[in-house]
Amino acid sequence: MLNQFQPLENKDKLIFLPLGGSGEIGMNLNLYHLNGSWIIVDLGLGFSDNELPGTDIIVPNINFILQNIKIEAIIITHAHEDHIGAIPFLWPEIKCPIYSTKFTSLIIKKKVSEYGTCSNLIIKEVIPEQSYKIKDFNIEFIPMHHSIPEMHALFIKTSKGNIFHTGDWRFINQENIESDSNRSNLREIGKRNILALVGDSTNIFNPNPARPENELGINLENVVAEHSTNLIVVTTFASNVTRLESIFTAAQKAKRKVFMLGRSLWRIFTAAQEAGYLQGVEICNEKNIKNLKKHEILVICTGCQGEDLAALGKIASGSHPHIRIAKNDLIIFSSKVIPGNEKKIYKMYNQLTKAGIKILHEHNEFVHVSGHPSRKEVQQMYDYIKPQIAIPVHGESFHLFEHCRVAKELKIPHVINVSNGDVVSLNQHDPNIFAGVENGRYAVDGCVLLEDDNKVFSQRKVMMNNGIFIVNIILNSARSIQIDIDSPGLLDKKEDDDLLQELYKDIKKFVYEYIDRDKQLKNNLKKLLRKRIRKELNKSPMIFIHLHKY
Amino acid sequence: MLNQFQPLENKDKLIFLPLGGSGEIGMNLNLYHLNGSWIIVDLGLGFSDNELPGTDIIVPNINFILQNIKIEAIIITHAHEDHIGAIPFLWPEIKCPIYSTKFTSLIIKKKVSEYGTCSNLIIKEVIPEQSYKIKDFNIEFIPMHHSIPEMHALFIKTSKGNIFHTGDWRFINQENIESDSNRSNLREIGKRNILALVGDSTNIFNPNPARPENELGINLENVVAEHSTNLIVVTTFASNVTRLESIFTAAQKAKRKVFMLGRSLWRIFTAAQEAGYLQGVEICNEKNIKNLKKHEILVICTGCQGEDLAALGKIASGSHPHIRIAKNDLIIFSSKVIPGNEKKIYKMYNQLTKAGIKILHEHNEFVHVSGHPSRKEVQQMYDYIKPQIAIPVHGESFHLFEHCRVAKELKIPHVINVSNGDVVSLNQHDPNIFAGVENGRYAVDGCVLLEDDNKVFSQRKVMMNNGIFIVNIILNSARSIQIDIDSPGLLDKKEDDDLLQELYKDIKKFVYEYIDRDKQLKNNLKKLLRKRIRKELNKSPMIFIHLHKY
Repeated sequence: MLNQFQPLENKDKLIFLPLGGSGEIGMNLNLYHLNGSWIIVDLGLGFSDNELPGTDIIVPNINFILQNIKIEAIIITHAHEDHIGAIPFLWPEIKCPIYSTKFTSLIIKKKVSEYGTCSNLIIKEVIPEQSYKIKDFNIEFIPMHHSIPEMHALFIKTSKGNIFHTGDWRFINQENIESDSNRSNLREIGKRNILALVGDSTNIFNPNPARPENELGINLENVVAEHSTNLIVVTTFASNVTRLESIFTAAQKAKRKVFMLGRSLWRIFTAAQEAGYLQGVEICNEKNIKNLKKHEILVICTGCQGEDLAALGKIASGSHPHIRIAKNDLIIFSSKVIPGNEKKIYKMYNQLTKAGIKILHEHNEFVHVSGHPSRKEVQQMYDYIKPQIAIPVHGESFHLFEHCRVAKELKIPHVINVSNGDVVSLNQHDPNIFAGVENGRYAVDGCVLLEDDNKVFSQRKVMMNNGIFIVNIILNSARSIQIDIDSPGLLDKKEDDDLLQELYKDIKKFVYEYIDRDKQLKNNLKKLLRKRIRKELNKSPMIFIHLHKY
Repeated sequence: MLNQFQPLENKDKLIFLPLGGSGEIGMNLNLYHLNGSWIIVDLGLGFSDNELPGTDIIVPNINFILQNIKIEAIIITHAHEDHIGAIPFLWPEIKCPIYSTKFTSLIIKKKVSEYGTCSNLIIKEVIPEQSYKIKDFNIEFIPMHHSIPEMHALFIKTSKGNIFHTGDWRFINQENIESDSNRSNLREIGKRNILALVGDSTNIFNPNPARPENELGINLENVVAEHSTNLIVVTTFASNVTRLESIFTAAQKAKRKVFMLGRSLWRIFTAAQEAGYLQGVEICNEKNIKNLKKHEILVICTGCQGEDLAALGKIASGSHPHIRIAKNDLIIFSSKVIPGNEKKIYKMYNQLTKAGIKILHEHNEFVHVSGHPSRKEVQQMYDYIKPQIAIPVHGESFHLFEHCRVAKELKIPHVINVSNGDVVSLNQHDPNIFAGVENGRYAVDGCVLLEDDNKVFSQRKVMMNNGIFIVNIILNSARSIQIDIDSPGLLDKKEDDDLLQELYKDIKKFVYEYIDRDKQLKNNLKKLLRKRIRKELNKSPMIFIHLHKY
């Protein structure tokens, strides 16, 4: 167990402290500290798992922040959900200026306006490659390639050493490596005496770089051209503006009109246009789709992860108001299968295939590339930046561990394997994890945030697996008894009538037996029912007994 | 919609009818028919998804069989769970002889004895390459390579044409292709006038064959040798006897004693030894593990899919009675990540990595190969067998569709894209799907089988997402009222006391208002509560109101 961190006793230390994203993919939240000033880098969401039934979204547990420190600024590297998605939920608790570039700021504003939780949000729009002084930190936004525009690494200059926080990135890899301005830029940064590199581990198990996005664009054009008589629907991650551009280009070359379905796509698209991207692209009104021939149409839509309620889900189930698909239409999944979504996505593949729709996806066509660095690109990054300390973040623990191994192989002097909550002292001679803080996750349940050990989750798990057994017993002074049973998720009143009748009898007999021992009655009846139901059904439901005597 | 199949009107047809495994990975069940006689090929289980909370296992819905036809025999190709796992649940309904080879028969017997549901099971042990006459079918068991011993394709000879049912297979690929006896065997079968090939589609999206198992064995030996001072634990699919053999060999070469943990491993191991495999292998008593040094130990265990309760889960959580792992020990996942299990497995990778355990898995080392045919091997199979009809099975619908595409490219005269429940007439001139039958899945819920549309599942889904709200109202003739609320999975009596107090007041007021209108009271109160809870919490729980007046 690590020592509990005492902020006041460590005011002079340059500190790195991840509260989310180090040990999981998602909900990135990193803290930096010097001389009593704290900044946050990224404030993202993650997705729930079976441990938190009834919830979809998780955000980092920020009890440490709320109880111990004041935040000077939230710096956002880019507008992906795992970097901005917690803002609507956590910003009202933190309330401090957000620093981000134009496009990212626009997305954040649109996002929070949908929730209505951050009416007085303060966003300072920054300009790439300029330097911003926030207390003891001087922060420069360094443009990097990623699957969304305006992803910026952070060059953080302090009196105790400089930090290069990579954010999510990949190399463009499409031209002569030597002439890549991104790489030469990084080489220059490497000359600025970098104490620590804090960097992306997502694709550390991929040995080689993904093919360049522009090759993908050309392939998409070819695919669209080859299906010259078919209706074409493309689904992708809404935030992948470069991909959207490739798709628009393919549509334009094939003289197809573009329709766009899905709220998140429109959010990104309008923000992109406001920020100067995707200029000159014309999106048609979806109501007009019925007036066009199949070969005149290209639809871009949300739903690439198999979500029932996204545009593609509605199209696939035939419930979309404006578009009907039929045999021989083509659907392109220009996206990856996010781990955990396989079953949902395969179900959609099956549904479409059975309807005679042709589908292309990463398993059978070159229709997606990742925006994260392969092992080789990570190695190149270290070669350019030459840090004294390597701190892998943005990954499951086993990704971070592998990234540590790679950094050690490269002889980076200090390699630190962090988990959420680890307090790291950054210094040249003995950088180390010297303390820990509370960390974990809140689940967004309806409109409230719950800690992940809230007992509603264990109760939901019991009910989802075993149902519930509710007994109501009314006993009057004439010893007349009325028993009612409800057992949703366990027994069916019609089908299981025999068993229910037996249980009624058992309960009645039991009540008469314990008639003068109320306290024991409830507990012992519960035991009896638990045993009976276990024996008959091999199930262990919640049991509620309500007894009223008069 | 297909016509409902009328067995009596189609007695003269040679029919293929899949009831499981065509449109999903798992629960394989295929029927063949001629002249009123029906046989089943394989009777496997599958795994539940989020649609069936509270259950783990699914088996095919066999209502069609039970209501319409008599089965003459169940032929089992091999002993994998997706081919035998439904026997303990469905055989008692079907009750007919099972035909399988020695090893497979032993596994089936051990399996059903664990359930105790098939006391009078009849298994006819068959000998490979011999021919068995069952009514109008002559069946020959053709040895194939797969990730379990004694996998047999079926050569089914009938007066209306011959069928080659591949089962699960791959080519061994380790020697000169021309001298591979399996391939020459298949070439001979191809000369026997094959009407239909019914075959495995699992890996149809993998363009090239997996590396041979013997290369994997050599790599395992190297890995074990390289970790000469570490404790080594290997987890794999229990049924992969060839893999077990490779692991035993690696242990033997490194002079390590072998310990084996996990019930399914012992079931397979003892069956394998009884059937003549894994001879001379010595497994040590796990209680003695504490007397050995780390470098003297190799543990084989279950739990490669991240199951909490399997041996590896217990080892990882420190709750195994005989084995403790510590920093620098090595755990090898000699297995694949089955789609849907990613989150569970990654959680285990994380848990182990955080404890300083080194892990090797398919992402960072050559420790697993598949037992299914790549596209190239499927193409070679068609080249050898030269069927008139290709019917892809054993896959999700999108796998079957891709397999159809491959078969069409090869100019197989008739390619039929089937789904569970499709009744296919097999004949040279116009093979076609001419009718359909009831199909789907039963879920194994505790100790009963439920159809997948049973309403306990929808009730469980509501409760897992929203909890339940139970109100008990007792009103006596003096108009004194007692209200009790239970709300598991929704509200906490302490934390949500304010809201609960408000709801008590609302309910009380409402009851007095409706005091003489019992019928309306319950319904209207339900509506009120639904609205209030939705507004306050954005949740929609089940609501039960129990009212008693006296």
